[in-house]
Amino acid sequence: MTNGLFRVECFYMRVEVINTGTELLLGQVTNTHLNFLAQSLFGLGLRVERQVSVPDGVAIVEALKDAMSRAEIVIVTGGLGPTSDDITRDAAAEAFGRKLIFHPEILDGIAAKFSRRKLVMNELQRAQAMVPEGGTVLDNPNGTAPGLIVENDKTVAILLPGPPGELRPMWENEALPWLRKRFADKLPPIHERTFRILGMGETRVQILVEEKIKAIGPIEVGYCARPGEVDLRLIGPDEGLIGAAADLVRTQLGDHIYAEGHETMEQVVVRLARAARKTVATAESCTGGLVASRITNVPHSSEMFRYGWVTYANEAKMTELGMAPTLLEKHGAVSAETARAMAEGALARADADIAVAITGIAGPTGGTVEKPVGLVYFGVARRQGKTETLELNLASARETFKYMASQVALDLVRRALS
Amino acid sequence: MTNGLFRVECFYMRVEVINTGTELLLGQVTNTHLNFLAQSLFGLGLRVERQVSVPDGVAIVEALKDAMSRAEIVIVTGGLGPTSDDITRDAAAEAFGRKLIFHPEILDGIAAKFSRRKLVMNELQRAQAMVPEGGTVLDNPNGTAPGLIVENDKTVAILLPGPPGELRPMWENEALPWLRKRFADKLPPIHERTFRILGMGETRVQILVEEKIKAIGPIEVGYCARPGEVDLRLIGPDEGLIGAAADLVRTQLGDHIYAEGHETMEQVVVRLARAARKTVATAESCTGGLVASRITNVPHSSEMFRYGWVTYANEAKMTELGMAPTLLEKHGAVSAETARAMAEGALARADADIAVAITGIAGPTGGTVEKPVGLVYFGVARRQGKTETLELNLASARETFKYMASQVALDLVRRALS
Repeated sequence: MTNGLFRVECFYMRVEVINTGTELLLGQVTNTHLNFLAQSLFGLGLRVERQVSVPDGVAIVEALKDAMSRAEIVIVTGGLGPTSDDITRDAAAEAFGRKLIFHPEILDGIAAKFSRRKLVMNELQRAQAMVPEGGTVLDNPNGTAPGLIVENDKTVAILLPGPPGELRPMWENEALPWLRKRFADKLPPIHERTFRILGMGETRVQILVEEKIKAIGPIEVGYCARPGEVDLRLIGPDEGLIGAAADLVRTQLGDHIYAEGHETMEQVVVRLARAARKTVATAESCTGGLVASRITNVPHSSEMFRYGWVTYANEAKMTELGMAPTLLEKHGAVSAETARAMAEGALARADADIAVAITGIAGPTGGTVEKPVGLVYFGVARRQGKTETLELNLASARETFKYMASQVALDLVRRALS
Repeated sequence: MTNGLFRVECFYMRVEVINTGTELLLGQVTNTHLNFLAQSLFGLGLRVERQVSVPDGVAIVEALKDAMSRAEIVIVTGGLGPTSDDITRDAAAEAFGRKLIFHPEILDGIAAKFSRRKLVMNELQRAQAMVPEGGTVLDNPNGTAPGLIVENDKTVAILLPGPPGELRPMWENEALPWLRKRFADKLPPIHERTFRILGMGETRVQILVEEKIKAIGPIEVGYCARPGEVDLRLIGPDEGLIGAAADLVRTQLGDHIYAEGHETMEQVVVRLARAARKTVATAESCTGGLVASRITNVPHSSEMFRYGWVTYANEAKMTELGMAPTLLEKHGAVSAETARAMAEGALARADADIAVAITGIAGPTGGTVEKPVGLVYFGVARRQGKTETLELNLASARETFKYMASQVALDLVRRALS
């Protein structure tokens, strides 16, 4: 899935991840730690070579020993709590052949946290103050269990608490700076650019840029395709070459690039609208409120989003957006004319600068030979300028269809704002 | 995390999962296969004991041999495509010591799919028609790569394609029935009930039911907590005892149970409304269209959902829902009075049977001492009966807040429909 033209040379330290937790293996919880850690490590020029999930308990020792036999860096998540099945720190002590030493200052810190929350500390908490001999303690402002780093000649093991709200800040604020410092000589500068691309398939992107990037120099190109869109990632040791490749990508892909970095489409739209002091209104049929919901996921969207309609029924398109019954009768609800009328109606009623409308057939039923499931029309109306419409077929499972249609709708707003 | 009162005895076949894919280890894609498979296997009385992610390529052979040394069932996801890094079928052939045999009928099937989509098949597709000697082929109506089952005296390996849209139906329709048949003698009857509970914490649920279930007999109780809600799962070998425990749960938790089984809240609402031939309208402020979007995720929701408003601005609450400016001035946008007026306005304009309204402060900014971030008011208006309002504080990250508020709003509709 990653087309490595060039494998960046600094990827030579082997990293493995061990996720502990019976809940992962019972399917009660999705493992989001791997994603988070892998993306962060990638930015450091490190790759996760192997990941394993094991239940709480003795399997952790075995998994840790196994990983230590191969890897320079092993990251273990979970099992640092106070109960009997939380044995990650014992497992690390055993795997590294170290004693566990009681650190009274850790227990004092935990006691202070309990006291602030007006809770009574029980004696099980003492387990969290045990540290493998020679280990480094990572502060946990968001919970009681501290993180730990244990190392020997060959391997560094980083033990992190399981809850994402504790793991993520600890990783960013403690473990990552520690790693950067510890391996300063082994982590040469690495530069990365990500482009988010809509309306162009992975192979088309590849054809447009890959050979040309190859000609620039040692740059690794990665693709990540999702329904309807693709991320393109450049990575390499030379900032100048990455910059040149980025310029090439911009030239070749133009306004198909909706974001650089990790901004989402809705974040881009809200940012552009706020900067331009423009308001956006939505008139949704088949997306059913998803476009509005995505916009309002972004903090401060209330500055640029004031009115949205979900006119699911034909009648609603008339009563709420002022669409003419004759128009609806003549062209049907799923038509360019309806998308146009919805957008223009929403623009007028909301007194907005831009209004986007979506009408289509999400399925699984409701399609005809002439208007199949997946057919969708978009309309974009502007205070200044003509209303534009777009027809696409985004046939796919219902929720994927809705997502893809919402993405196109937001992209049309982005283009109208650019 | 699972409070095992009793570990069901039929969990004696060891299952391991191998997820292949460089994109998993680069953090580009979240592994949702483990969740899906583990939950499904749990219903069969099987637990995943270990899961490993390995990159595309030779690591698959080693991981497969390693898993085969321990497990009776090994499930491998991904790597069945046509390109050079898709080597799962080769890895299985090697690990089982089998030759790969060309199956022309598979290639004919793939050719037919290409032809239907008016695409030209290339010769790489031939790889997908190779089957380890003695292997069973699993049909893939949603893609080109067939699934495969290979077995020896000790281990059954089930190879599934990576895309979730291909894996899931293949698992449900092909692999699972095959497993049930193959291990009919080893999979004693197992009974499972899941209850989805809103408005009650995990520990409260536990206090209300756990000791009483223990008294009934050998039943394993599992909890899965998510923001604002919890799933309770009963599992055991005796149908009668599970039935008695389920009755107990229903008595103890009452209408806090919003679903039995794996139905989502929006599915429950759409099902109840369709059955009662009632229509539902939404008037959203802080949830920003999420309630409407969740309803319209459900097929056939157009039968019961016709009108939705996202009145994010105060003005929209007046112009679209007919709220009196004096009311808004007196009580503010985040108030029970506004929630009531929004719900009643939506009910009237949509001529609906039930309308739900949500207004609150999603944050991160906009809170005051009197009305802090997280404060949210709900209103439910009915064609017959009085409008009800509810005040909650759901302070959390913006998207979590929106989700929890949408869940409560849908639950209020569910209760109004019950």
